[in-house]
Order: sequence, then structure tokens, then C-alpha cells
Amino acid sequence: MIQHYPSQLLERAVEEFAKLPGVGSKTAMRLVLHLLRQDVKSVESFGQSIIRLRQEVKFCKVCHNISDTDTCDICANPRRDHSIICVVENIQDVMAIEATQQYRGTYHVLGGVISPMDGIGPSDLQIQSLIERVNAGDISEVILALSPTMEGDTTNFYIYRKLSDSGVKLSVIARGVAQNDELQYTDEVTLGRSIVNRTPFNISL
Amino acid sequence: MIQHYPSQLLERAVEEFAKLPGVGSKTAMRLVLHLLRQDVKSVESFGQSIIRLRQEVKFCKVCHNISDTDTCDICANPRRDHSIICVVENIQDVMAIEATQQYRGTYHVLGGVISPMDGIGPSDLQIQSLIERVNAGDISEVILALSPTMEGDTTNFYIYRKLSDSGVKLSVIARGVAQNDELQYTDEVTLGRSIVNRTPFNISL
Repeated sequence: MIQHYPSQLLERAVEEFAKLPGVGSKTAMRLVLHLLRQDVKSVESFGQSIIRLRQEVKFCKVCHNISDTDTCDICANPRRDHSIICVVENIQDVMAIEATQQYRGTYHVLGGVISPMDGIGPSDLQIQSLIERVNAGDISEVILALSPTMEGDTTNFYIYRKLSDSGVKLSVIARGVAQNDELQYTDEVTLGRSIVNRTPFNISL
Repeated sequence: MIQHYPSQLLERAVEEFAKLPGVGSKTAMRLVLHLLRQDVKSVESFGQSIIRLRQEVKFCKVCHNISDTDTCDICANPRRDHSIICVVENIQDVMAIEATQQYRGTYHVLGGVISPMDGIGPSDLQIQSLIERVNAGDISEVILALSPTMEGDTTNFYIYRKLSDSGVKLSVIARGVAQNDELQYTDEVTLGRSIVNRTPFNISL
């Protein structure tokens, strides 16, 4: 259906929204008409927040996490354990681990995982800078916290090969049955691994 | 879950997106990270298109349709039939009817329908200005093209009472079985009405 927009301003805004992933032209229209009903100030604030984010946001020069400053809050925090690096795929993973409040070390954001199908190789990721961080010394442990997928495992293995001579302790986040999972519906690989990698019973868990 | 945003710029942009209807904080985060991967120019263009729309868009002083000018393209078009007014709920309905290419008259956008449940009364809608348009003369027909819902019917009836003394011809868009509908799954009211309001057989339909 060819759309007959009564206004070019409207058409342009709808087209811009429809470029967003998962937003079709009908949803875009609904969002734009919603914005038209808001007061001018809050719509200006919305538009400016997007423009400022893109213009001003930085990526931490140490861990490549998103940041308002050259070095992110975590890398700049003297109370974090700078001898431990947790390797993650993206910014959301940093936020998810931070939300657990179980980790006091630093991070290294790869910006993706190795995926030949999508044409993503090691050189497209922040792997070289991880190796440099480790080789610079003062690192005792690197925790690989990538998703337990084929791509994640490939990336884990690639990093393992690159760091195996460095003498740094390499660990992987525990894989097993998730909280509240039903055993009978857990896949064989996960369940098998959870028995092989059983841990001492601990009343506090 | 309390979110620990690594950047206030990021947090602000995510919060702004999450204010949109149907957009939760996870979707907002996904959209914002998508924008971060686009080049600065196209993100500026996106933000500016929203701000400009809200700042500059007008509503036609005749029919209240959205417009870039004081009078919309349809009301300003001498080739449209200005003696016919099609009353619709909103801008999307104008666009939907225009897309059919079956109507050459003008519109009147009410901006909603009467809905006591939502606290929307006649004075919240562009009904008074419709009456004034009709009373100003030169109008031969008013087509009521509201959705066939209780609120639409209430609004139709309200307009009917207000215009019944004006001598203008009042009509309602045809209600019946929709193209490609299966008769056995059509509701009783629609099917019953489609028989009562049957039209002469026409080979061109």
C-alpha cells in the first residue's frame, strides 16, 4: 500500500523510526503520533538525548565498556580488583553481571564473538587489546564469561590459545542447571556437565 | 532488577525511549545500542526529524488534519469536492481512505471518539468546528466514517442529532462482510446487517 502522508515532516519522522530494528511503518506511525501529543519540551529532550549520546559517548580505553569519560567508572575505581579481568561479549553483559553484585574485578568488552557465518573474525573484536592487557602484567586471572554457544565456545578457545603461554589463570563461568529449572526438561549436555562439574555442598547457596 | 548504567548519556537515552508506548527498558536498550552503531550524521538526522516534527508541524485550520501548512493539501486542492465532508477519528483514517483512491471530497478529523469510560466528551473533539463548517453552507453531504464500535456509534449519533436540523445529507460508510471474509465466521450483527442492507448486484464490483 502506498502511503499518502499529509505532511512531509510526519513522513520523514515515520521513515526515521521505521529504520530501527523491529519497528515497522505502522509501529513507527504510532510512536510518532504519540510524540506529537507530548509537549514540545519533552520531545526536544528526547531528540537531544539521542543526538548527545551518539556525539558524546565514549568507550573506555582500557576495557572498551561504554563510558562518559576516557576511562570507565569501573576501570577508574581503586576499590575494584584490577588483577582480575572478566571477558564479556557486550555492554549488556557487563550490566547483567554488575546487577548480581557478585563481582569486584574489572571487565573486557570484546564487542561480539567470533562468528564465521556472520563474517566476524578475531580482528573485528577487542581480543588483541585483551592480550596486551594481560601481557602488560599484574593480571592474575582472566574469567571467560561468554554465552555457552558454539560462537562463544569458539571465542573462548581462541582466547585460551592466545593466553595459554602467558601463565595467567584462565577460568570459565560455571555451566549447569539454572535456578528453578526442572531437571527432566534440562538438556543432556547441561545436565551431564552439571554432574561432572559438581561442587561441594554448601548450606549458604 | 536495578540497572547499573555505565554511562549517564546511555541511561538518559534508554529512559527516553522507554517512555514510548509499548517500549520496555530491554527494547529501549536494544534500540539505543543500535543507534550507537550508526554513523553520527544519521543519528543526528533521526533526532532532528523528531524535534522538527513537533516544533513545526501544523494542523489544518479547516479539517484539523496534520499538515505542513495552515491549510492542508486536501483542503487547498481545488480539484477536490469541497461540498462533501468525510468525518474520521484520526489522521491514520485519512491516510487509509486516501490510499483507496475512492474518495474525492474533503475530511474532518475529530481527534478521537466520544468515550465516557476514557473521560472523552464532545467538547474534547473537533465536533463544534464540524457543525460550524456545515452551518457555513455549501456542504451537501456529511459521511460518517467512524469505526463500527460502541464509541463510534455514540459519536455518530451525537453528530446526527447536532446536524439533523441543518438539512445536510448524512450518510454512514457501508457495514457488511469484508473482502475475503468467510461467511461462517462472520459475527451475527455484521451478517444480519449485510442481508438487510443488500445492494443491487453489480458486475464491476
